[in-house]
Amino acid sequence: MSLPRIALTIGDPAGVGPEICLKTSQESSVLDSCVPVLFGDQSVLKAVGEKLNLPVPKTIISVDQLDKLDHLEEPAVLDFSSLHYSDFETGKVNAATGKASFAYFDKAIALAIESRIDGIVTGPIHKKAIHAAGHFYPGHTEILADRTRTDDYCMMLTSEIISCSFVTTHVGLHEVPELITTESVLNCIRLTHQALTKIRGRSIKLVCCGLNPHAGEEGLFGRQEEEQFIIPALQQARTEGIDIEGPLPADTAFIQSKRATTDGYICMYHDQGSIPLKALSFDEAVNITLGLPIIRTSVDHGTACDIAWQGIAIHQSMIEATLLAARLV
Amino acid sequence: MSLPRIALTIGDPAGVGPEICLKTSQESSVLDSCVPVLFGDQSVLKAVGEKLNLPVPKTIISVDQLDKLDHLEEPAVLDFSSLHYSDFETGKVNAATGKASFAYFDKAIALAIESRIDGIVTGPIHKKAIHAAGHFYPGHTEILADRTRTDDYCMMLTSEIISCSFVTTHVGLHEVPELITTESVLNCIRLTHQALTKIRGRSIKLVCCGLNPHAGEEGLFGRQEEEQFIIPALQQARTEGIDIEGPLPADTAFIQSKRATTDGYICMYHDQGSIPLKALSFDEAVNITLGLPIIRTSVDHGTACDIAWQGIAIHQSMIEATLLAARLV
Repeated sequence: MSLPRIALTIGDPAGVGPEICLKTSQESSVLDSCVPVLFGDQSVLKAVGEKLNLPVPKTIISVDQLDKLDHLEEPAVLDFSSLHYSDFETGKVNAATGKASFAYFDKAIALAIESRIDGIVTGPIHKKAIHAAGHFYPGHTEILADRTRTDDYCMMLTSEIISCSFVTTHVGLHEVPELITTESVLNCIRLTHQALTKIRGRSIKLVCCGLNPHAGEEGLFGRQEEEQFIIPALQQARTEGIDIEGPLPADTAFIQSKRATTDGYICMYHDQGSIPLKALSFDEAVNITLGLPIIRTSVDHGTACDIAWQGIAIHQSMIEATLLAARLV
Repeated sequence: MSLPRIALTIGDPAGVGPEICLKTSQESSVLDSCVPVLFGDQSVLKAVGEKLNLPVPKTIISVDQLDKLDHLEEPAVLDFSSLHYSDFETGKVNAATGKASFAYFDKAIALAIESRIDGIVTGPIHKKAIHAAGHFYPGHTEILADRTRTDDYCMMLTSEIISCSFVTTHVGLHEVPELITTESVLNCIRLTHQALTKIRGRSIKLVCCGLNPHAGEEGLFGRQEEEQFIIPALQQARTEGIDIEGPLPADTAFIQSKRATTDGYICMYHDQGSIPLKALSFDEAVNITLGLPIIRTSVDHGTACDIAWQGIAIHQSMIEATLLAARLV
């Protein structure tokens, strides 16, 4: 059987994306499990390769030769010829780098929908750069949902140590309470249960956090979001055979003894899950968008412009994301 | 010099408070640094002592013999004679246990204000029990603020590994954003800087978390609470000579490399600080109320009624709280 072909979109050319994608495409663990295809500009990859003494895949495919992807068996670059490395300053994202990073990702989605590639792993883009290029999305996830016409999706961050899924993500804290509904919680639970059961290859145990301090302490804090929305969602999930505990106070949910028996956490808002995840396993976590018709994973960090093109960015998260995408195929 | 006399209020008699106070009053590290006085009912302490084979301090002082406290040099019980152990069921808090636990604490505050004792360490009370007894406070902290007529106070949780102070605590998540003001953030920063400088005995470094995901990402998420309130508070703090970084995204603020260089965190809401604190150092953290005219520390857990009177409650947090109170004297 041939290995899955996984698109690694290099993200914003001015950030750490190009170098971590180059490094990842040479890892033996990655090459054993998939054929990585770097979606980006040859000129950019060659420049960062020369600067940091990293080899660039020999096979270069231009975007008008997509049939060459179909039987690909070795690492390659899908060259967009959209940007020259002299068109931007490293570490400085702008409209041109934003436009290029959007184009790499947009093409990867289209090719995944057509099954010309088997999955997508995304390097970091910069929100301001893609906005400057006229694409007004908060991030990769919303682009994916739009392009694949998916309504019910959710973000999960996962590592060996801890996995967290999110009912809400990139919204102001004041907007969170009104977005907690029985449907939004239940959607997150179902998608997480399905994905983690597949990833772990066995039955799994979930924990659901409350929204308020002490999970509301029986209605003392908050507007009874636990009683009105979260508890009914948990009751419904249990009738569907999902093993889930909660709502637990978020601070005791993540203590060591509880983590030891929990495969995944359902978190109500961004920092509720990303604080313990990054405190416990920074650099190793992978971001997956659940509920899509295509496979997509991502690094769990940004463009890190302050250290871009210096060879010091850690590519462990990109490796983990690529291995997970290959496994999900 | 004589050792400081520290009140250990036993908390709700039906919970784990009595046993952890008895155990703590026998620890050699505690006895080396203070004279512990258990504020509670002799009948309760004797009953739990007999059940769990723990000795009770021999010196019993009744509440009408307070002058005996003044030159106390060995562990003692201040006996309220308010409750008999047969008046309640262990593990079941009620109005009678709530009334008793409130009385122990209320007396401790009064004696601390009169300097008859040098500090207070509180065992866990149960909110529902004190409410049932007609005392409508959310917790110890609010009782203290009221009795000592203190407006500007804040809660800090501290352990060897991590210390977090809170701009808001026991309120619903939907109430948090409107409570973030330049004054409330600055108050928390100043009190934390003062307390941690004293506890560590050297100059210290603080980190302030943002309110929204990614600390608002330059105004993209939230209502610019970072720009409007948090950043001005940090600027003012720096003009006062306080070494403080931020506002940082809360999820990257607590990564291991950042923790290594941070003495204390300023957190905007309860779970923002208590999640990493309990994930990293459960059972060891101490709760201090900053800004009071008296010294008060507390265990960082509740009445744990499910394991009360069984001898399995861990008393490490009570020991740490007592040692810290003695050090602050």
